[in-house]
Amino acid sequence: MTTEKNLDIFQTRFHNPSIFAIRSRTKFQGKLTDFCVPANSYFPPPQMLELISANMGDILKYYPDYSPVYQDCISELCGTPAENIVAANGVTEIITILCRESGGPILTSVPTFGRWTDLPPDFNIPVHFVQREKTRDFVINADDVIARVKETGAQTVVICNPNNPTGAWFTGEDIAKLVKELAHIERIIIDESFIEFSDLTSAEALAIGSHNTIVVKSMGKSLGWHGIRLGYAVANTRMAAELRAKVPYWNINGLAGFVLKNINKFRAQYAESFTKVAADREYMYQQLQKVPGLTTYPSKGNFLFSELPDGVPGKQVRDILLEEYGLLIRECSNKAGSTEQYLRSVVRVREDADKLVAALSEVLADFAPAKAA
Amino acid sequence: MTTEKNLDIFQTRFHNPSIFAIRSRTKFQGKLTDFCVPANSYFPPPQMLELISANMGDILKYYPDYSPVYQDCISELCGTPAENIVAANGVTEIITILCRESGGPILTSVPTFGRWTDLPPDFNIPVHFVQREKTRDFVINADDVIARVKETGAQTVVICNPNNPTGAWFTGEDIAKLVKELAHIERIIIDESFIEFSDLTSAEALAIGSHNTIVVKSMGKSLGWHGIRLGYAVANTRMAAELRAKVPYWNINGLAGFVLKNINKFRAQYAESFTKVAADREYMYQQLQKVPGLTTYPSKGNFLFSELPDGVPGKQVRDILLEEYGLLIRECSNKAGSTEQYLRSVVRVREDADKLVAALSEVLADFAPAKAA
Repeated sequence: MTTEKNLDIFQTRFHNPSIFAIRSRTKFQGKLTDFCVPANSYFPPPQMLELISANMGDILKYYPDYSPVYQDCISELCGTPAENIVAANGVTEIITILCRESGGPILTSVPTFGRWTDLPPDFNIPVHFVQREKTRDFVINADDVIARVKETGAQTVVICNPNNPTGAWFTGEDIAKLVKELAHIERIIIDESFIEFSDLTSAEALAIGSHNTIVVKSMGKSLGWHGIRLGYAVANTRMAAELRAKVPYWNINGLAGFVLKNINKFRAQYAESFTKVAADREYMYQQLQKVPGLTTYPSKGNFLFSELPDGVPGKQVRDILLEEYGLLIRECSNKAGSTEQYLRSVVRVREDADKLVAALSEVLADFAPAKAA
Repeated sequence: MTTEKNLDIFQTRFHNPSIFAIRSRTKFQGKLTDFCVPANSYFPPPQMLELISANMGDILKYYPDYSPVYQDCISELCGTPAENIVAANGVTEIITILCRESGGPILTSVPTFGRWTDLPPDFNIPVHFVQREKTRDFVINADDVIARVKETGAQTVVICNPNNPTGAWFTGEDIAKLVKELAHIERIIIDESFIEFSDLTSAEALAIGSHNTIVVKSMGKSLGWHGIRLGYAVANTRMAAELRAKVPYWNINGLAGFVLKNINKFRAQYAESFTKVAADREYMYQQLQKVPGLTTYPSKGNFLFSELPDGVPGKQVRDILLEEYGLLIRECSNKAGSTEQYLRSVVRVREDADKLVAALSEVLADFAPAKAA
């Protein structure tokens, strides 16, 4: 049952291969079920795709609007003043600028989103880690971060809340403490790309009132699409203006712009989608608890982080799930601070969660004798 | 007939307002005919829009591919090796990096594309100009540029070929001379965003064999859409790799990526579109010669540059054409080295060109007595 050799398509340096690359290379013949790309399963609604198709000619043909138009749209969506918002071609555009410009070492927790760990070395900027431990359900708190800042002399601190891929989170008190205690460092970055799926309060208001704190946010996750490239940052008016001057003109493509200008027509479905995902997450979490040998951790993201039994090779599990069951999950060995013992599964509807639980139970049962042997 | 006050929508710092902003503010009730956005009027074909609509779900949902996939696509399209190509979120993404990183003064001709003149000051980099003169049909040559480099100590030279908005061009010999004689400066940038509409030979091969020359190219113009955000640079392997490391991951959005991966299905129509535009340009050029008082200059772009009679206010002409005729043209007073006496009109099909010629003839006739008075 096991594959002889791990699929070479997954031998990427940092992130996962694209779904297009996987589809063209897997031997599984049916439709793949994707537990890998952390999109919103209840958004966009079909009516929004219809609206896009009906306007495709104009969307493609003309230059997009200038940034003030998009700042206004994002402001209307999140309630933060437009002057504090910087719109971006995906949050990665902002992450790249912030990493490049850090005046000193960067500190982040691991495992976390790969760009935060892998980009600083590209710019010859030292990066230090706070290791999240399974004995603490991968939770860290403000004191852990503050202590590591003292040890490392970090000038930039990055916090993902909730954290990807572990799903662990900081409390509002923790974030407030960080902002207060780290007033002397250059910059505190709070990555809230998955916060819409949680009941956490955004730190956007905190950032606006701070001299060194910036909130960054992917919109791909919450809007349910990553191909569109859309993200933003929130900071005090001066920092926002400075950051805005560093992103290229027309950085928001016409399709992303169209979505922003029309999102308010779908506000009810947008809000409702997060409630639905949260309910699915609770169901999937409960079901994954039933897989013998698998440990799944609490999460406030739209994904769950699971630990395989000792000695079970995660890459083989990933490959078998893909090749034999058509289920695509994220094996986490190429994330700093993680190993192939960890899998991230995106929250999907109950029917899909049941498939994953059944498949994982079968695959792990097959590995059990090998482990005992 | 004249409007009392120039339309405030056009009071932008550098570029033109977006078509979306204009449409929502003009009093003209019919369908606007756009001579402003320099897109390809014969591309994309309807079949390509249908293909996009049919795949919209996937395009939006998933992360785009990584850059090597797109380098291969562009390589197949232009015949340049993939290792020499850097794919970008519009050529402006690359222009922004190149301006930011210039180690000394930048030299460009004017009037030209606004980003080349307006971005260097944002990065506190001096920018010098070679003024294009109407007495020479706005043509400059290698000797003009080389002389200004000596006078100014420029470290970066930017050449648009053909030049936007004048349509004037450099010969192949001129470009070769520039690359040879300016081997001592940091960087020579050749912006070929409109070269597909011309019979000029690209300098891509020259750039690959050079230590300091880079070709940059918008694909929005040739593909016929600006909203998609797609451009690229060509340089020697080392420079290309260095530049690639500076653009963010996933900078190519899913829609642009899809187009790149499917463009080869439409190669025949793509090539044919440029021949058709060239024929339309010749027709429109000839017709514009018939407008009393208007001087229109030779062009190898998909636009024509015209000079109004002395004393005729270009902003009022633009506003009257928009408000009374529904014709949107580019009045060039906010371009360095130009005044409101100059208009840029995008090449459109004969029927539209006839409309513009008729409208301009009427409007200029109304201004003639005012001039004589």
